Amino acid sequence: MDANQPELGKQVRAADRAHVFHSWSAQDLIDPLPVAGAEGSYFWDFEGNRYLDFSSQLVNVNIGHQHPKVVAAIQEQAARLCTISPVMANDVRGEAAALVAGHAPDGLEHVLFTNSGAEAVENAIRMARLHTGRVKVLAPYRSYHGATSTAIAATGDPRRIANEAAGHADPHVRHFFGPYLYRSAFNATTEAQECERALAHLEQVITLEGPATIAALIMETVVGGSGLHVPPDGYLAGVRDLCDRHGIVMIADEVMAGFGRTGAWFALDHWNVTPDLITFAKGVNSGYVPLGGVIISGPIFDTFRERPYPGGLTYSGHPLACAAAVATIRAMEDEKTVENAAHIGTDVLAPALRDLKARHQVIGDVRGLGVFWALELVRDPETREPLVPYAAAGAQARPIQQLVSDCRSQGLWILANGNRLHITPPCTVTPEEIAEGLTAIDTALTALN
Amino acid sequence: MDANQPELGKQVRAADRAHVFHSWSAQDLIDPLPVAGAEGSYFWDFEGNRYLDFSSQLVNVNIGHQHPKVVAAIQEQAARLCTISPVMANDVRGEAAALVAGHAPDGLEHVLFTNSGAEAVENAIRMARLHTGRVKVLAPYRSYHGATSTAIAATGDPRRIANEAAGHADPHVRHFFGPYLYRSAFNATTEAQECERALAHLEQVITLEGPATIAALIMETVVGGSGLHVPPDGYLAGVRDLCDRHGIVMIADEVMAGFGRTGAWFALDHWNVTPDLITFAKGVNSGYVPLGGVIISGPIFDTFRERPYPGGLTYSGHPLACAAAVATIRAMEDEKTVENAAHIGTDVLAPALRDLKARHQVIGDVRGLGVFWALELVRDPETREPLVPYAAAGAQARPIQQLVSDCRSQGLWILANGNRLHITPPCTVTPEEIAEGLTAIDTALTALN
Ligand SMILES: Cc1ncc(COP(=O)(O)O)c(C=O)c1O
Ligand SMILES: Cc1ncc(COP(=O)(O)O)c(C=O)c1O
Repeated sequence: MDANQPELGKQVRAADRAHVFHSWSAQDLIDPLPVAGAEGSYFWDFEGNRYLDFSSQLVNVNIGHQHPKVVAAIQEQAARLCTISPVMANDVRGEAAALVAGHAPDGLEHVLFTNSGAEAVENAIRMARLHTGRVKVLAPYRSYHGATSTAIAATGDPRRIANEAAGHADPHVRHFFGPYLYRSAFNATTEAQECERALAHLEQVITLEGPATIAALIMETVVGGSGLHVPPDGYLAGVRDLCDRHGIVMIADEVMAGFGRTGAWFALDHWNVTPDLITFAKGVNSGYVPLGGVIISGPIFDTFRERPYPGGLTYSGHPLACAAAVATIRAMEDEKTVENAAHIGTDVLAPALRDLKARHQVIGDVRGLGVFWALELVRDPETREPLVPYAAAGAQARPIQQLVSDCRSQGLWILANGNRLHITPPCTVTPEEIAEGLTAIDTALTALN
Repeated sequence: MDANQPELGKQVRAADRAHVFHSWSAQDLIDPLPVAGAEGSYFWDFEGNRYLDFSSQLVNVNIGHQHPKVVAAIQEQAARLCTISPVMANDVRGEAAALVAGHAPDGLEHVLFTNSGAEAVENAIRMARLHTGRVKVLAPYRSYHGATSTAIAATGDPRRIANEAAGHADPHVRHFFGPYLYRSAFNATTEAQECERALAHLEQVITLEGPATIAALIMETVVGGSGLHVPPDGYLAGVRDLCDRHGIVMIADEVMAGFGRTGAWFALDHWNVTPDLITFAKGVNSGYVPLGGVIISGPIFDTFRERPYPGGLTYSGHPLACAAAVATIRAMEDEKTVENAAHIGTDVLAPALRDLKARHQVIGDVRGLGVFWALELVRDPETREPLVPYAAAGAQARPIQQLVSDCRSQGLWILANGNRLHITPPCTVTPEEIAEGLTAIDTALTALN
């Protein structure tokens, strides 16, 4: 649809306000932007405003907006066969499963498809419970795993709290502290120390909870929305070792980190660790059609060879979603999209963000890899007092919201979470687009000071 | 794709077995049928076999397979805008919400979109808990609400049991007995008596659980997969009244019953009852793109005007899914699809199934309306001993599986659940197709006797 149709934009806004209930929001305190169209790294509204998308929407359009090969694949599959039940076998479903498993570590060969990340997490935890005969689940504070009741219980960040208070949560999840050197829970001063102490802490939690009660440990390989924490070298291997020693299923949640985001197909490729289950969604088909899933190791698959798996969903392995995944993965392979994300991270974003930090006291920490970065903002680099408090809402969150809207008025769409600005453009982003976006951030930060 | 490509079919089967994990199944004990294509009430495999689809897949392709208007709408929307985040306003999202709410009772004006029925149920229950400040949920035995942990806990049928045993369930759900005259839990002998006694039972459960602890009562308006129970006149109004008297949120799960299945837009239209929340999925766009949601009453919407709603999902209000919903609903309006379902139910299926029952002792009960029917099968019409026991699996389920495969070898695809054959063709089904399917069932039943 064209930009510059302000009347149409008004109608879209009116219909939205009259009938659409928005997630994570107080309905009267939001003003959703009517979007008219999108392409590549940009989208636009009905009033002629174009935005550079440093959010990839909700960190899902890894391949950029409206990639022609994915659009064509959806159109072709729609003409062939939109839907067929999970009971059947289907060509694109099998092909998508093979491609997804093909990018996972050896030994993870089967895929249960879901519609979303939350459903992937629900199924991974169910599998772990049935496989082990245990109930408890460990997950880090500062994490997000989705909003169905087990997934939100596993979530460590503030989004869990109102759900738990309302009784809408799985009672069997326990949280531990992951590595986060900038605000170490372990008084560590180096990455190596943080890694070692975080593992010692986790081992204590396992011991004190009782290893024989713990079905699974679920963690984002690289923590995304809840902090952008890249694990120190050795941490994931240490977690793998603890899980092995105690018969705990290791679930790597790659919903946000997977499919190119970190400059690798899966974030775990950076550390060569093989979990028992991998959850994915988002980047698998860039969210062009809802899709998520679980990649399953041999031993867990074996548990359900003769014993029925007690879970499912109407749209498991949806042909349209799977066709989009096949086209997305093939296009990412052919166009070296993952390689581009790695190059942008190492050669463009890393130095540019270091430079930005040097020029803005408000940037306390810069973290990330690939096209998956955050700027953690502080009132004072010495005390590290956050720019806005943990779980800030309303007026408390105003300083960071101010930055977001300053960027927006410069044509940059960027998301904030807590006291962080998240920089998560599509994996197809160019150096020029990065420069354009960082200029807007630079200007907004300067205005703040 | 064409039929008669047996080599291709073998490849599809091989890829499926190598990489696809199937829901609700023991992976080594299934042999998924490779499907090559579908149209209207039929689908076909790669070996030249055509099947009349009396399952509507998982009771979702209400508009039939590959409806040209819905296919075209998906293709057009794919070209315009495949995805945009729930944070934005979007034309087809607003239009879909208006159309969905437009078919709901007055006073339910807002829609939270999800990807699935399970996610709809999760969000409805979360809303009820936050709205009431209470935790417990009541749901009937013999019900299905999805497979995420709160949804599977609300489920009353055997699918819940392994999940609950594994600790993958919401601990705050309590089950009660719904009306089911054929096997009355209340020793009733007439519909009116069953209705009155079922309501008295429910009132007792509410009293004994403590009304002030109960957030929500969730029930399928017409119970689908777990029994095909059409509520007696007066039952839903009685439930509404009990909920009103005790401040309990009434959730009507219309995931399977909604959008034409019963010969009405929503099953609750048959009884003119207005719940507080309606969950939907499946028929809303016939599952051409994954979509579900919750339709929200004014008072519950008001709860989240200034207070943030603590739930969400990456693909809430997905444009491609919403475009499919808009096209589906408009086509169903234009083509009088719901009226056709009502006509088939009243004028074709009701008399034909009564006739079938008269000729087969094994049919103990016939229940349904619209294109939503079940034959309950018994060893003996006097004792009403079920053809296969409750929650039958493996060898125990063989007699009913035999019927299913007999139908299949005659070109009829039909699903069984427990001791029932479910007859749930698309809402677009013709009298000739019904006759074709019933002939196959007749033959299979005759062979069984
Ligand atoms: C790491 C992670 N897991 C799970 C989810 C939940 O995915 P969905 O929103 O598709 O349910 C998200 C969503 O942001 C996520 O980032
Ligand atoms: C009444 C009802 N509610 C909820 C669900 C769950 O829907 P989904 O499979 O899309 O999660 C179903 C699915 O069959 C259903 O029939």
